[in-house]
This record gives sequence, C-alpha cells and structure tokens, in this order.
Amino acid sequence: MKQTVLTGIKPTGEIHLGNYIGAIKPALELAKKNDYHTAYFVADYHALTKFHNAEEFKRLSYGIAATWIALGLDPTKAIFYRQSDVPEIFELNWILACFTSKGLMNRAHAYKALVDQNHQNDNDQDFGVNMGLFTYPILMAADILLFQSDIVPVGKDQVQHVEIARDIAESFNHVYGETFKLPTYQIQEDTAVLPGLDGRKMSKSYNNTIPLFVEPRQLQKLINKIQTDSLPPEAPKDPDTSNLFLLYKEFASPSEVQEMRERYLTGIGWGEAKKELFQVINKFIQEPREKYNELMASPEQLDEILLEGAKKAREVCIPLLKEVKRKVGFTI
Amino acid sequence: MKQTVLTGIKPTGEIHLGNYIGAIKPALELAKKNDYHTAYFVADYHALTKFHNAEEFKRLSYGIAATWIALGLDPTKAIFYRQSDVPEIFELNWILACFTSKGLMNRAHAYKALVDQNHQNDNDQDFGVNMGLFTYPILMAADILLFQSDIVPVGKDQVQHVEIARDIAESFNHVYGETFKLPTYQIQEDTAVLPGLDGRKMSKSYNNTIPLFVEPRQLQKLINKIQTDSLPPEAPKDPDTSNLFLLYKEFASPSEVQEMRERYLTGIGWGEAKKELFQVINKFIQEPREKYNELMASPEQLDEILLEGAKKAREVCIPLLKEVKRKVGFTI
Repeated sequence: MKQTVLTGIKPTGEIHLGNYIGAIKPALELAKKNDYHTAYFVADYHALTKFHNAEEFKRLSYGIAATWIALGLDPTKAIFYRQSDVPEIFELNWILACFTSKGLMNRAHAYKALVDQNHQNDNDQDFGVNMGLFTYPILMAADILLFQSDIVPVGKDQVQHVEIARDIAESFNHVYGETFKLPTYQIQEDTAVLPGLDGRKMSKSYNNTIPLFVEPRQLQKLINKIQTDSLPPEAPKDPDTSNLFLLYKEFASPSEVQEMRERYLTGIGWGEAKKELFQVINKFIQEPREKYNELMASPEQLDEILLEGAKKAREVCIPLLKEVKRKVGFTI
Repeated sequence: MKQTVLTGIKPTGEIHLGNYIGAIKPALELAKKNDYHTAYFVADYHALTKFHNAEEFKRLSYGIAATWIALGLDPTKAIFYRQSDVPEIFELNWILACFTSKGLMNRAHAYKALVDQNHQNDNDQDFGVNMGLFTYPILMAADILLFQSDIVPVGKDQVQHVEIARDIAESFNHVYGETFKLPTYQIQEDTAVLPGLDGRKMSKSYNNTIPLFVEPRQLQKLINKIQTDSLPPEAPKDPDTSNLFLLYKEFASPSEVQEMRERYLTGIGWGEAKKELFQVINKFIQEPREKYNELMASPEQLDEILLEGAKKAREVCIPLLKEVKRKVGFTI
C-alpha cells in the first residue's frame, strides 16, 4: 500500500522565488512521482495565532492556496484541502490535549524562543504569548494524526513538531491500543538556497527577496538591483560564484544553462546577464502568474477546489475520529 | 427577552444525597420557574482530562445524564444536551485559545493547586499535568460563549472560570466588535449543607456519603450508621442539632417536618428516628430510582433525548460560530 505524505502550508505572506525553489518545488515534485498518496492542506487556522485582522487573514489564506495551484499542484491528483473545512481536526485536538503532558509543550522550541525573547527584554516570561501559540503543536498533531500520515516533509525547525505528534500518538495508543499511525519526518534537503538581492540567502527577514508573482516591469527592476562585482563586460566570469548565474540555472532549461555557462566563461556583461535572467524567470513565471491572478480574482473558484478537497479529506478523517471516540468511551 | 442560564454537569462518579440537595435540586428549580431559558449540558469531554478508561467514561456520562432526568429535568422544557454532540464547541475552543493570554491560564486556581501539590511532593511543577487539565478553562469558555449564556450558576470554586470566559470574550469583542455576550456568574448559595454519616458535610472526600440511587436495604443500612449521641429513647432531643433531623427535613413535607420536630422535643428513640428517616428518603427516592434504573438499562433512550437536545443547542451554536468565523476572515 502506498504511504501518505502530508504537507501543511501555512499562510505567511508574500511568497518569493526562494520559497518556491527551496520548499514548494520539491514538495510538488512528490505528487508527480506517484509513489505516494499526497495530501496538502492550507493551515489557515494556525495563522490565527498571529493574524487578528480579517482582511489580511482572508488575503493570506486565499493567496497561499492560489500560489500552490498556480505553481502546479493538481487537485485531481493530490488531496488539497483547507484545515478550516475539516472540523473533526478540532475535536481531535481536544482529545489529544488530554494525552499531552504539559512538560512537552514547555519544551517546544517555538515557545521557548518566545520565552527567551521575553527574558532578554525583561518581560514576564509569558508576555504576549497566547494559548494558540503555546498549544499549536497539539493542533499540528491533530492535523497529522487524523490523516494517518506516514511521512511529513519538514524543514529542520519543524522536526520537533513531528516528534511531538509521535509522542502524543504513542500516549494514546498505549492506553487504547493501536489507533494512530506513528508519523515520520523527512527533512527537506535545503540544497537549493537561492541568493537574494544582496547575495545572502533570499529571505523575508533580510528584506532581499524577489516576490514570485511580481509584474514584469517590477521583476526587471528588482533583478537590476542584484549586486555584482565590477569586472568589465568582456572579462571572463566564474558562473559558480555568480548570484545571477545561481538564479539563472534554477529557472532555465539544461541546454540554456550550459550555453549561459559558456558565455560567462568567455565573458558576458552584467547588464546582459541580468536581461537574460529576467527573460528566463519571466518566461517561467508568466503562466503561473496569470493563473494566480485569475484565481485571486475569483475566490469562489478556489473555494470550490478546496471544498472538493475537504470532502476527500473527511472521507479519511471522519471514520478515524469515530474509531477514536468509540475507544475513548463515546457511543455515538 | 428572557435570559439564558447555562448549567454544566460534569460526570464525576456516584451522586449522593448531598449533591442532590446542594446542587442538583436548586439547579432544577430554575427550570421550573419559567423566568429563564434554561440549558443543561453533560460536560463529557471535560471528563477526558481525568478518565482514560472507556467503560468508566461511558458509565459516568450516561450515569450523570440519567440522574438529572430521573430527578426531574424535563428535556421538553429545558435544552439538555451532551457536549460531545456539539462539535462546534471544539472549533470555537481553538479560536478562543488564540485570544487567551497564557498568563490567564497560569493563574487558574485548579492548575495552581496541581502545581502546589507538586511542589509539596518535590516534583517538577508540571508533573502529571496534561494539557487538557491546563487548558480546560478555555473549553469552558467555549461552552459558555457559544451558547450566548447570560447567567452561569456556579459553586464558589467555579467563579474564576466564568471570569476567564468574560476575559476571553472581551478580548475577542475588542478586536472584532460586539460578538459574544459577557456571561455573569450566580453563586449557588450553599445553604443546604447536608451532614454525612459522621456528622461532617456529606462529601465523597470524607467517605461519609449516602449514594442517591442505592437500593432500600442498603439505604437502611447506611442510615443506621449515622452517628448519634447516647441519650435514652424517652429523653427530649434538640432537632436543630440532630443530623438525623437535618436530613429528614430535606426530604419530608412541611407537615411531616413539623410533626417530627414535636416528636424530637417530647422524646423519640434514635432507632425510631432512623426508621422514619429511611421511610421518608426511600419514599422520595423510589420513583427517581426506578426512572434512573430504567434509563441506565436502555442507553438508546438516553441517546435519543440527548441528541434531540443537541439539535436544539446547535440551532443556537451554528449561526454564532458562522458569525465568529466570518469576522475572523473565513469565507465559508
């Protein structure tokens, strides 16, 4: 039987080229391989720990859903749903809380980072911490366990969440017998670190990003800002240390990459290299951008796709929640 | 418009005469007065913070539901439902968590008592504390707020829970505008403290209780154990300091009470007084006991009553949750 791979997608704001290459592209490639059952969900309720503004919340949720579909997530092949359309997750969330030791939450990295920050600022250790922030690893466990996920692809900072889900599953299974599958994590090899405008890793926190769905003129402008050295146009250049080339090779075809490599070695002006980079990124992004804009203009189309996905997700979740409740002692 | 009074009923084990007189009877009298919309719910999911045994869990939940109906709760007049039949409560529970400061939970009495106990035993402060125990005041807030309750009758130890629900409601209303009613508590005057077998307050923790639905022979045996002084039968006795009389007057009619008072003053043997006490309690309990046994023998009858109640409860809860979600930024 095929294993199930579950990918949670948290709405976090404007997606940039680095997010695409580092996280979205490898996650989408899983679905193409056909080795697994793949499920992706928009973790919209998780965003409520931080965003208390309805317009922003709505924009983020739809935005992230539209992004993934625009980039090739095929809802007919993978299950693609929105957490808030699966109410069973929240009932399981409470059940799991009763099998989660408080100590486990005290030791969660994200919470500890907040506490450290409060200590540094001479605040009470729980200053500004709401209970959503403190307990969200339990909700993540509910997300994972209710779907009987085998594999959860995560960044390194998320490994602990899968371990917590395993711990909670084991506590429950220990009392009521084998019920939840124990999920395993798969660390996403972050080999493809994309350089940002200043040459450091492209990251929102460095303010050096190129947003994914920016319009062509703006894209060209941003590319022009990418820092280069001051070699004259005709000087040979090392492609492997050039930020422009590192970006180029992620979006061009193998033959284009080969050709460009030779142009670098024999000498290419930075202005020319930037134009070529613009061409190749813009060509790649053109179609997804259109699709993205189209989806954002008709959220009812997104709703339809997501509700269809939720229906499929609930076909898995509802029977499992019933089994869990029966084991706990509920009769209905 | 009539106000809504919401009473939560936690399954906690065998109900005794003290529970009936001190808590159940006054709560049921509210429903008879017709001044309020009254709603009662079996807080079965709250029991999961402590009971991890399916058979016990089931017995407790059905037991408490059967007890209240047997004692006169009329499901056609009050809304009577089971928490676990209203999944909306758990979705709201998560939403409210995102508006609950962790400090508020740190200061909850029940949690602090657990911490104190751990300190006394030289344990880690969160030893044995699961996240259900730590977060249940949020679930209580969801219980209360999703029903737009005006008044929550509570014992003194429960006042803080209603205050927490108000705090959370205010946090939410502050961000999204008037949404939740702010509930108020009504302290149940614990005037009717019933003496137990040893003369102290009847309480499970003193192991001096007379269970409510015990069979007649066992009832007689327990009453015979009630401690008395050693006055001879013919000596006049003070009814107001006699445990037997204190119990008698809660279950007898006013004329019976008057008559018995005179028999005490002119002299009655303790054996005789115990027989009379048995008669009056047994007479009172006979019908409820039959009803209770009948319900416990056919849980499907209880399920039917409770599901009918849940339907009524959800007529109130579903539109409110929708409104809350719309305000937060969900569109479905």
